Amino acid sequence: MRNHGHLIMGKNPIEELLKKDPSRFIEVITSSKSKDDPLFSQIKAHHIPIQFMGKNQLSDLVGSDSHQSFVARVKRRPEMSIGEFLQSTESKTDSCILMLDSIYDPQNLGTIYRAAECYGVDLIIFSKNRGSNLTPAATKASVGATELIPTCIVSNLANTLKELQDNGYWAMTTNIGKQAQNLHTFEFPEKSLIIMGSEGEGVQPLLTKKADFQLYIPMHGQIDSLNVSQATAVILNSYRTQHHSNSSHS
Amino acid sequence: MRNHGHLIMGKNPIEELLKKDPSRFIEVITSSKSKDDPLFSQIKAHHIPIQFMGKNQLSDLVGSDSHQSFVARVKRRPEMSIGEFLQSTESKTDSCILMLDSIYDPQNLGTIYRAAECYGVDLIIFSKNRGSNLTPAATKASVGATELIPTCIVSNLANTLKELQDNGYWAMTTNIGKQAQNLHTFEFPEKSLIIMGSEGEGVQPLLTKKADFQLYIPMHGQIDSLNVSQATAVILNSYRTQHHSNSSHS
Repeated sequence: MRNHGHLIMGKNPIEELLKKDPSRFIEVITSSKSKDDPLFSQIKAHHIPIQFMGKNQLSDLVGSDSHQSFVARVKRRPEMSIGEFLQSTESKTDSCILMLDSIYDPQNLGTIYRAAECYGVDLIIFSKNRGSNLTPAATKASVGATELIPTCIVSNLANTLKELQDNGYWAMTTNIGKQAQNLHTFEFPEKSLIIMGSEGEGVQPLLTKKADFQLYIPMHGQIDSLNVSQATAVILNSYRTQHHSNSSHS
Repeated sequence: MRNHGHLIMGKNPIEELLKKDPSRFIEVITSSKSKDDPLFSQIKAHHIPIQFMGKNQLSDLVGSDSHQSFVARVKRRPEMSIGEFLQSTESKTDSCILMLDSIYDPQNLGTIYRAAECYGVDLIIFSKNRGSNLTPAATKASVGATELIPTCIVSNLANTLKELQDNGYWAMTTNIGKQAQNLHTFEFPEKSLIIMGSEGEGVQPLLTKKADFQLYIPMHGQIDSLNVSQATAVILNSYRTQHHSNSSHS
């Protein structure tokens, strides 16, 4: 078992996934000695094997001290192809996709996933080559959202963008340039694909060029932009003030 | 000089403070060997002393590897008393204050400051005893906003809240309870004091009780709350869609 599955860490992510899809659990590895931890009864209720391990060994296993004494080995959420995604959302009148370009910081990647889950994003797309993968640190920062939201990892973001645009999605990116529209008055199309880029490099020019809209978030201070995970939350919040339907991810 | 002042690290924070208030710089300490780095010409233009140091020594100095080869020793922004703050904003028709309760994570504290600066918050208040101080890691995550926004560090948040309420501020806190109002339809008073709490503990009951309004951010997924720095950005964005005036901090 040791080399299979995917490690998630932290009590919150484990608890969220236990509620959502307990069949994905292979085992829980813990350094906790406290039998009354309510997490234990949940794990036992689902007959998930428990393995005990020293705290330091556990830190070595996940490469982080932030496991709160709990790590779980889970089956990866099966990846989705764009075709499968389009089929599964065919009947939806509104839908929101997030495309990430060059998000390398696992903390940012994780909190972006968290916001995406909170706002019922249907799919997250990122590139094999331009960005961090879903590491345990990202999963932790996402409080488990990385295991809850369908994800497509693609080789070419521009081609994928085109495919989704051809299937009814309108794409928008953020930009502080002149041609951008004010987020506060922008009307989001029902099917929106929001492209977020890294703070250093921003969204690659090819994607910006292909996007249908460019938005800016009005700023009132000296610093000209929010952290990328805050900007994502603000934009998704705006989308959801206009399109209220509940999340479809399952 | 070595033991005076306050260390900030990273190119962005240093650049922001150089633009804003170069007189606060005591010295810049760098491991960069690249003379064409544009930051050097800005530092020289303000006649700020430069000290060279090895990369590892620099990391030891700030206790972090994230300095991007640049650290600055700066004079602390003088702290403000609530009385001074009230005097300085007497003529303003709108004003926004952020009160932080038990924010211990320096990354969150820093990005909260960043969002606060971006949205023109006039003052940040936190408690000596309940929360992290402004460490170099927080300053880095804030891209320098910790040095740009007036801060009051108080011993009793509840007393400070009362004083500001007595001076025309309405206080609001976030809550997922039943009595809370929907952020999307809430009308922010012109003088708003927004209380944000830690993710684990939330805002202490005494402050929640004293607040005039409780708000919730409508969520559409399985996870019931954003990361605290994202929630702060979303709430400040809502305030600013209603009250547009520019920041007064100077």
